[in-house]
Amino acid sequence: EMTTTTLKGDLLDKVALDAMLRRRMFYTPSFEIYGGVSGLYDYGPPGCALQANIIDVWRKHFVLEEDMLEVDCTALTPHDVLKTSGHVDKFADWMCKDPKNGDIFRADHFVEAILESRLKGDKEARGQKVEEKEEDPKKKKKKSKAQAAVKLDDAVVKEYEEILARIDNYNGEELGELIKKYDLRNPATGVQPTPPMAFNLMFGTSIGPSSNIPGYLRPETAQGQFLNFAKLLDFNTGGMPFASASIGKAYRNEISPRAGLLRVREFLMAEIEHFVDPESHKKHHRFHEVEDVELVLLDRHTQLSGQTTVKKMAIGQAVKDGLVDNETLGYFLARIHLFLKKIGVDQSKIRFRQHMANEMAHYACDCWDAELLTSSGWIECVGCADRSAYDLSVHAKKTGAPLVVREALAEPKVTEQWEVEIEKKKFGPIYKKDGKAIEDALLATSQEELSKLAKELQENGKVVIDVPGVGDGKVEVSKDLLAIEWRKRSVNHREYTPNVIEPSFGIGRILYSLIEHTYWTRGTEGGDEARGVLSVPPIVAPTKVLVVPLSKTKDFAPFLRKVSQKLRSAGISSRIDDSTASIGKRYSRNDELGTPFGITLDFQTIKDGTITLRERDSTSQVRAEEDKVIAAIQSLVDGSKTWTDIEKELPKFEGQELEVR
Amino acid sequence: EMTTTTLKGDLLDKVALDAMLRRRMFYTPSFEIYGGVSGLYDYGPPGCALQANIIDVWRKHFVLEEDMLEVDCTALTPHDVLKTSGHVDKFADWMCKDPKNGDIFRADHFVEAILESRLKGDKEARGQKVEEKEEDPKKKKKKSKAQAAVKLDDAVVKEYEEILARIDNYNGEELGELIKKYDLRNPATGVQPTPPMAFNLMFGTSIGPSSNIPGYLRPETAQGQFLNFAKLLDFNTGGMPFASASIGKAYRNEISPRAGLLRVREFLMAEIEHFVDPESHKKHHRFHEVEDVELVLLDRHTQLSGQTTVKKMAIGQAVKDGLVDNETLGYFLARIHLFLKKIGVDQSKIRFRQHMANEMAHYACDCWDAELLTSSGWIECVGCADRSAYDLSVHAKKTGAPLVVREALAEPKVTEQWEVEIEKKKFGPIYKKDGKAIEDALLATSQEELSKLAKELQENGKVVIDVPGVGDGKVEVSKDLLAIEWRKRSVNHREYTPNVIEPSFGIGRILYSLIEHTYWTRGTEGGDEARGVLSVPPIVAPTKVLVVPLSKTKDFAPFLRKVSQKLRSAGISSRIDDSTASIGKRYSRNDELGTPFGITLDFQTIKDGTITLRERDSTSQVRAEEDKVIAAIQSLVDGSKTWTDIEKELPKFEGQELEVR
Repeated sequence: EMTTTTLKGDLLDKVALDAMLRRRMFYTPSFEIYGGVSGLYDYGPPGCALQANIIDVWRKHFVLEEDMLEVDCTALTPHDVLKTSGHVDKFADWMCKDPKNGDIFRADHFVEAILESRLKGDKEARGQKVEEKEEDPKKKKKKSKAQAAVKLDDAVVKEYEEILARIDNYNGEELGELIKKYDLRNPATGVQPTPPMAFNLMFGTSIGPSSNIPGYLRPETAQGQFLNFAKLLDFNTGGMPFASASIGKAYRNEISPRAGLLRVREFLMAEIEHFVDPESHKKHHRFHEVEDVELVLLDRHTQLSGQTTVKKMAIGQAVKDGLVDNETLGYFLARIHLFLKKIGVDQSKIRFRQHMANEMAHYACDCWDAELLTSSGWIECVGCADRSAYDLSVHAKKTGAPLVVREALAEPKVTEQWEVEIEKKKFGPIYKKDGKAIEDALLATSQEELSKLAKELQENGKVVIDVPGVGDGKVEVSKDLLAIEWRKRSVNHREYTPNVIEPSFGIGRILYSLIEHTYWTRGTEGGDEARGVLSVPPIVAPTKVLVVPLSKTKDFAPFLRKVSQKLRSAGISSRIDDSTASIGKRYSRNDELGTPFGITLDFQTIKDGTITLRERDSTSQVRAEEDKVIAAIQSLVDGSKTWTDIEKELPKFEGQELEVR
Repeated sequence: EMTTTTLKGDLLDKVALDAMLRRRMFYTPSFEIYGGVSGLYDYGPPGCALQANIIDVWRKHFVLEEDMLEVDCTALTPHDVLKTSGHVDKFADWMCKDPKNGDIFRADHFVEAILESRLKGDKEARGQKVEEKEEDPKKKKKKSKAQAAVKLDDAVVKEYEEILARIDNYNGEELGELIKKYDLRNPATGVQPTPPMAFNLMFGTSIGPSSNIPGYLRPETAQGQFLNFAKLLDFNTGGMPFASASIGKAYRNEISPRAGLLRVREFLMAEIEHFVDPESHKKHHRFHEVEDVELVLLDRHTQLSGQTTVKKMAIGQAVKDGLVDNETLGYFLARIHLFLKKIGVDQSKIRFRQHMANEMAHYACDCWDAELLTSSGWIECVGCADRSAYDLSVHAKKTGAPLVVREALAEPKVTEQWEVEIEKKKFGPIYKKDGKAIEDALLATSQEELSKLAKELQENGKVVIDVPGVGDGKVEVSKDLLAIEWRKRSVNHREYTPNVIEPSFGIGRILYSLIEHTYWTRGTEGGDEARGVLSVPPIVAPTKVLVVPLSKTKDFAPFLRKVSQKLRSAGISSRIDDSTASIGKRYSRNDELGTPFGITLDFQTIKDGTITLRERDSTSQVRAEEDKVIAAIQSLVDGSKTWTDIEKELPKFEGQELEVR
């Protein structure tokens, strides 16, 4: 069990962080005055702005950088679509129930929790220090009842640890067996739960006023992109490979949502579907740009052997070694890493974990998750799956729509084969309603069979073919109704169903992990332990600049207006705080909101028009004319300069003791 | 009936426009390869970008300009919330059914369609020219069956016209009476439909794996904002007035969705809830900034008198005259107008229509719609309602949460009254489980009654009070358990429930209307009638710049890379088209996509590094060095310069005949 730390390496005080997030309204339980609904959260102003900025970076990093085709599809989805995609039958988690008190568990979480609790008890019995994993208080209470300091055999400890390493790989039956084998019981009642049953995670509804169309809220944005494939290919004037992208809400009726943003029932996803020719070996023309990017990898084999040892290596090497299957998958893993780095995720708290066979979604043939380390352990924040041709194939088969690429061949391919030509006009009058079945039977005839029939036709002037369901199953067709000939044919086109590589981002999970990764308190540097700081990079900070006049005097009004107006023109989001609280208190509030810069207007401003600029992380200040300060902020926000650069360019300011630390 | 025109004043060819929107994938029926679901549409790349840009302007124009508190709440909403808000009982349309063939109609649309059809028949019979109103082809077919050139009495014509003027004001019973009175029949069967019944427009679902919580998809984003009111007020450090804002999907199970974006079942809303002290007379401190903005107004009284005559007047005057109720409402009407203007809506196709009494939503006490003129008539695109204290009051009453503002009074208010003081500690031991009921009864006693009880207590040393349900309903309380005294109290605070002014934007309707308002064809100016142009302003254009190399030669590659890179750094979205189509064809495609600027790289570029810049609407071009052209584009996109400015600054280019018109 790893311990979670703040940005500065101190132990993370989750209770203090939660209180800060609540106080500053980053997010809040939805419908709280009605008692709330678990798994539903609203974003308050700073959370909403942080989310919008993460999305903005995402759109620039992926969609604009690579000319992806962004689409916005509906969340309401008719049953037939999700039946074909496999979600109606397979998009489920394993659920079990305590027959005594009706408690409902997600089976894998249940097994995980009880085994972890036993291992903890064992550690205690052996007199080892136990790290408390953060949980919501309700759960903790329930758990502590069951937790007893019982020493286990060394072999049993090893068995439990191996089970936990591959906990995501068990199906319902296997989870049921684990519950029986290790006699796992609900701590609240002391009773074993029922065998796991599949519980479908989609929210159902029905569409239309009368002849209702059964439907669901989409569990992913991907299906809308697949269904529009032919139109998107056309919009792209036929060019391959290309990617579509979509940002929107998705819905999953989780069996046991966690407290907080990590497992919720309504969430924002950003998904890319990159369509690629399977015969290209999934090469990527920009792979060379990222091949030196180093990733931390946890592969399938390591996990299956009951281990969680990671390897750090360049993605170029990982693809060369076959650890990552192909360049396109590798390219996106590296791009995902660079995106997470750009928004401020802690580089030492990212790993890429490969899915095990049973763990993969029904549509995937390979999948790597970008996991971020939080106080709740390693959390899947981005999935990067190879969905092969699965989705396009099943929808094409179901609907008959040609979800394929038709590619001109550089030189025509010549083929020779037996071909059947039918005189359709004569078929109808002779065979009536059976015409179609007979035609179909002829067209379905194998090459070997056709060669025999050709001979028969030449010799007898007719053929006899099997058509089940028509008359006695044998039908005679005479030579004036068909021809069977050996023909040479030159093919100019190749048709194929593209494969899909899908990077899929859970924005809420990324947002929450980012908060944990960038949080620390002034206590670390000798200041007040109660003063939190959120050191998110300026590019994603909810507000870029806080503007504070030293006091409420009217003399500051014209300067306030001018500074605000100039910041707005420069496209920099700012807020004025002209409350009567001390400057230190006002900055302190904004440190918690992640505001990276502060402008102070003081009496010197009224005299000479200079203002001070304060940086959140160092709390150091510079002083200069308004326009110079605004230009400095602009370069800090667009990333062209660092605070160290600005400290060299503009005079340091230490005039007043404004800071409370 | 008004005729709809293009931007250039020609008759709008809706069929050609629809074909263009489909060809360029602005939007497309969702799930089309599955046969589609009416009322659901997906946005393709240009529609998606246009939508994102409209939202971006909206956020800057409203949220950032006025420091609104943006929140992002869930669409999933538990039943209890929408029961309290009145939506479960009242958010319904009137539906009727053809008993013969099962056809379902929205009752007001049914009455409207049949009366309009009869008026049209009358015109034909009188030999007048009839304007075809655009409809989807299916409907047209059905309708035309019934439409006969029958002359009506002048009095009947007048009656029909008056009914149509106030068609939004009838309730279900009244619509039923109109159907009977005028014998309105389904053209497809010749049968009168059933009397209208209320059909609730919300999509239902249930939340959670077991003890399901019944819920709905939100029909508006407003409720999430109201439920968070206390937290938002706190975030705003208690300051009033303030506004919250939200951008998100909402859902309405429309009885009869139209073809196209104008009545859909899933749509993007942008809503503002402006909270204001009702005792402020709803004054607005920035009203003076907009008081001269001229609006076209259609008030309630005009409509009730069966007319549709509009008045054009400054909003300052309209508020002064009492036509618009208060400054805050007036302020937002003007700001809505300015927003619509900024994104390119045709100024001559906007009007503000006041709701009639029966038409208003159950929560509103006044409402004005910004309506835009389209080929489907005047379409409500923005609603601006005064919801008074309705929502906050009902939620506070239901949950007990204090959704109020507590305001410090400038000077304390002194009140005198009878007050009861209870010795709670002694109550429990004596009255046991009845203690609470007795306390409540005492606290609920009126002032008049208390004055009597005070006397009784003084005289008898005890009082006898009525407590229904406790013993025989009479309870004796002795003087050691309570005191009843006449007390003077100084009140320092005032508590009130704010009123809400709500501007609510249907983004899809605005987007579609904007497309109609900015569409024209080159035919107007002597060019090819088949070549469409979408003259959306650069600020909302899906892509700002098309970059086209003259040919596919490799020599252009470094220039292409450099130009793209520089545009990206400047934050200007661009696309390269290096296909083999002629330059004219490539520009023509982008005129339809609304791309305002084009850069051509030609052989001169390779020699001296100059490039040409083409403007979409005039098709005129200038030529200059790369950096000058990019700076020009930047000033055109941020609105600081016009094309006329640029034409004066940079040399005109007429070298090659690149245009096909």
